[in-house]
Amino acid sequence: MATRDALKFATSQSDQIDPYLPSPSPHLSKPFVTLTFATSLDSQLSLAPGVQTALSGPESKAMTHYLRSKHDAILIGVGTAVADNPSLNCRIEGVGGYGGPGLVAQPRPVVVDPKGRWDFDAESKVMKLAKEGKGKAPWLVTGASISQEKRDLLERAGGKVLEFLSSSNQPSLLTSSISWSAMLDVLADQGVKSVMIEGGGVVINDLLSSANFKLIDSVVVTLAPTWLGKGGVQVCPNERIEDGRRLPVGRLKDVKWIPLGEDVVLCGHPNMEP
Amino acid sequence: MATRDALKFATSQSDQIDPYLPSPSPHLSKPFVTLTFATSLDSQLSLAPGVQTALSGPESKAMTHYLRSKHDAILIGVGTAVADNPSLNCRIEGVGGYGGPGLVAQPRPVVVDPKGRWDFDAESKVMKLAKEGKGKAPWLVTGASISQEKRDLLERAGGKVLEFLSSSNQPSLLTSSISWSAMLDVLADQGVKSVMIEGGGVVINDLLSSANFKLIDSVVVTLAPTWLGKGGVQVCPNERIEDGRRLPVGRLKDVKWIPLGEDVVLCGHPNMEP
Repeated sequence: MATRDALKFATSQSDQIDPYLPSPSPHLSKPFVTLTFATSLDSQLSLAPGVQTALSGPESKAMTHYLRSKHDAILIGVGTAVADNPSLNCRIEGVGGYGGPGLVAQPRPVVVDPKGRWDFDAESKVMKLAKEGKGKAPWLVTGASISQEKRDLLERAGGKVLEFLSSSNQPSLLTSSISWSAMLDVLADQGVKSVMIEGGGVVINDLLSSANFKLIDSVVVTLAPTWLGKGGVQVCPNERIEDGRRLPVGRLKDVKWIPLGEDVVLCGHPNMEP
Repeated sequence: MATRDALKFATSQSDQIDPYLPSPSPHLSKPFVTLTFATSLDSQLSLAPGVQTALSGPESKAMTHYLRSKHDAILIGVGTAVADNPSLNCRIEGVGGYGGPGLVAQPRPVVVDPKGRWDFDAESKVMKLAKEGKGKAPWLVTGASISQEKRDLLERAGGKVLEFLSSSNQPSLLTSSISWSAMLDVLADQGVKSVMIEGGGVVINDLLSSANFKLIDSVVVTLAPTWLGKGGVQVCPNERIEDGRRLPVGRLKDVKWIPLGEDVVLCGHPNMEP
């Protein structure tokens, strides 16, 4: 069993983050949503779309993989799938494929791709890792028509296409704004009890907007002590205006700041007070 | 002696910040520069120019006043002076005007006002506090012509106008970009050995730009666990491009993250490595 690439995340750190992670709650009607990402001090994910920018340190990487092991699914938008060719598996020592049996604790990758833009093939990292038994094959959530060839490729690897059709009272994925509530229903129907939403900028800003903020259960943000400068991919949700007055879009409560190498990890729960 | 408004900052916190503050170094040719500000997670100072936005908690406010007590001068741009009518004094218990004698440990307010836009009068907060013996009168650094009336007002309170004239090899304050190096020379000529630069957005972004980053000695940034949303006053320096490639603008080293109430305080020194 290959453990060469396996990562470790210290218990002294994970103990601090665990209170923010999903715990078994069979009564929940929607999946537990953890929103997680890493930014610079000027709130940027990268120098430019598709430019992988080394922001956070090795400890933060291990933390991300630890978080993945604690969720049924990890979700990204198609922009990130196209730009980064991401692995979307979990490499914490002891999970399936990294010292553990089968696919134990490997999360299901979910790619949200309203218009069918994701041009994956058997060589895409996530597909190769699935073939090697080091991760699960992805679910592609889309409102577009997907070719039989791509469906077959996904299904042979153990993944599938989840169709997300528009209805009169449910905004379609084909529109620019996703109905995250309906999206979470789709995942719940598939038995997903927890999902970690990782990016990219479009997805994060949409979830942080005042309409969707309440759907988030926990936030885990890593901040790196660097400024990238104008022109990168920025986390900054749309403005919130009520009664003609601008208000902060969202605030966290039960806040914990955990220094991690040169970075800091912010954990919190959305504060629903006005 | 009025101590009603006096603030306290716990030694347990100040001990962590002190290594980043100026210490007597008579050999320094330029003032020690501490850049300090508070932002939201989306790197914004306020919801809009002139809108005072409650971002950080009471502990952060006490910290700001503690920092002020450790600097000869505090500097802001004219935009902040116009928008906020700031007090620009130090209210830590024990400094002059707040339990201490005279103006001990009160910093000199410096307003950088290239075009002479600051329309202060005797009722401006900083002028009233000077009159009450609770702070020093401001220095106005400008390249514009200031009326005799305003000069008299300043001088009667103990302040003055510092003229900053352009020369062939020194960018003028009348241009959009300030020569911070020359500005610091002006302060050094006045005996200022340390300056805390507090804002606003234009000043901070200019100092964080790659041309000026090296002039900073310490950075003390407070981060509040909130997102303000698009349209606010954002800290995000201009991009840095070298050999046609975008690079991060600036990174900190010797980093310390200090949780402070719901906020975190980031202390660090500019990292001059490429």
